[in-house]
Amino acid sequence: MELFYSQDIESGTCRLDHDESGHCIKVLRHRCGDEISVIDGRGTLYRCRIISDSHKEVVAQVIDSIQDWGAHPYRLHMAVCPTKNNDRFEWFAEKACEMGFDELSPVIGEHSERRILKTARVEKILISASKQSLKAAVPVVNEPISVKEFIAANTDKDGLKLIAYCFDDEKVPRRSIKEVLNGYEGTEIIVMIGPEGDFSHEEAELALQAGFIPVHLGASRLRTETAAVTAAAAAYFKYM
Amino acid sequence: MELFYSQDIESGTCRLDHDESGHCIKVLRHRCGDEISVIDGRGTLYRCRIISDSHKEVVAQVIDSIQDWGAHPYRLHMAVCPTKNNDRFEWFAEKACEMGFDELSPVIGEHSERRILKTARVEKILISASKQSLKAAVPVVNEPISVKEFIAANTDKDGLKLIAYCFDDEKVPRRSIKEVLNGYEGTEIIVMIGPEGDFSHEEAELALQAGFIPVHLGASRLRTETAAVTAAAAAYFKYM
Repeated sequence: MELFYSQDIESGTCRLDHDESGHCIKVLRHRCGDEISVIDGRGTLYRCRIISDSHKEVVAQVIDSIQDWGAHPYRLHMAVCPTKNNDRFEWFAEKACEMGFDELSPVIGEHSERRILKTARVEKILISASKQSLKAAVPVVNEPISVKEFIAANTDKDGLKLIAYCFDDEKVPRRSIKEVLNGYEGTEIIVMIGPEGDFSHEEAELALQAGFIPVHLGASRLRTETAAVTAAAAAYFKYM
Repeated sequence: MELFYSQDIESGTCRLDHDESGHCIKVLRHRCGDEISVIDGRGTLYRCRIISDSHKEVVAQVIDSIQDWGAHPYRLHMAVCPTKNNDRFEWFAEKACEMGFDELSPVIGEHSERRILKTARVEKILISASKQSLKAAVPVVNEPISVKEFIAANTDKDGLKLIAYCFDDEKVPRRSIKEVLNGYEGTEIIVMIGPEGDFSHEEAELALQAGFIPVHLGASRLRTETAAVTAAAAAYFKYM
């Protein structure tokens, strides 16, 4: 099934941007009268019929639509520190999107080596992964903020708030993410994953004060991006 | 913690190969008398003291050893069809290794586009991922065989044998991998993951006759390498 992506759907008319139009007309050789399926990135799939087949801007008439198409039964917000190597962060984003998540906050920790991230590339990867895995909603990508800012912004949030870190803290024993998820009856989850050098003790302390529950991801020492994918998989399995 | 890898450990003496010796002496600047930790790839960690610090061949004396160092409480054999793009297969191998698995059989299906795989590169990645995730055992990589050969070779094997495919078969309803794993009391697992074009109906039929249980990996449509990582995560979580 071939999906297109458009943010320009209104009054029963859908327009594809330059890239999507080129792919539709030049590569897939669609013409006026053909039916195409378009996701809006916000959860709705539109079945449309092409009425203008310019390779610069395809215009299509909406036939019908399906809300919450390919939706998953939970809401997962992942706050992940960018990895030194960008590819690894992008790989996590793609894989977590295939399984299903909703919002990505790149967060910069005190021990982060990479302190900037261009969100445009990640957004493109998420659109592509959403189409590939047949979901009409594309995860939202927020601009990077610091770990402390993220914690402050989520102090009053409801739902299950988790922070995965590696260092041992005798005062605060960690349970496995599986155990904590198993004991949760809701569907709203926030997970924080630290950088290669882990969260600082101060960041972890602030998170705990803000209601985040410390978890571990099992006995293996996982890279940042593997930890993030493993956390996404934990949520995916919980609601499977 | 810095780990070295050697297959040449006997009579209390450990020798590092050319690459590992160069890394040990030139990069990390170890010298005679220094203590190093060496994994043998078969599950044992050796604490050793360097007695010859040539950058071409480090020789070290074994001080003591720990068996089953970093071992996981299950045995997972993954039979995965190589992806069109080699990087994606290598990503899966690295990530599954970080979580923990034991044996990799690249298998070629009737619908496989990629019909060859060089195992040497994958072996290198697995050694590196084992060191990175602090495990003394490196997964074994078998030479590629066809899906049908793999099924035939595993017909008489005990343990839980799973095959993940995407097509619907009304005669054989699939359960989720989570449900099937939850109902299993043993520790030996074999999982087969098909190529981009899925297993053929004949391959799936043969697998079922050989005692493989058909499973799905949840509601999402996953790429081959994501399916393989998700299956590895399912085992990792079962025994977490």
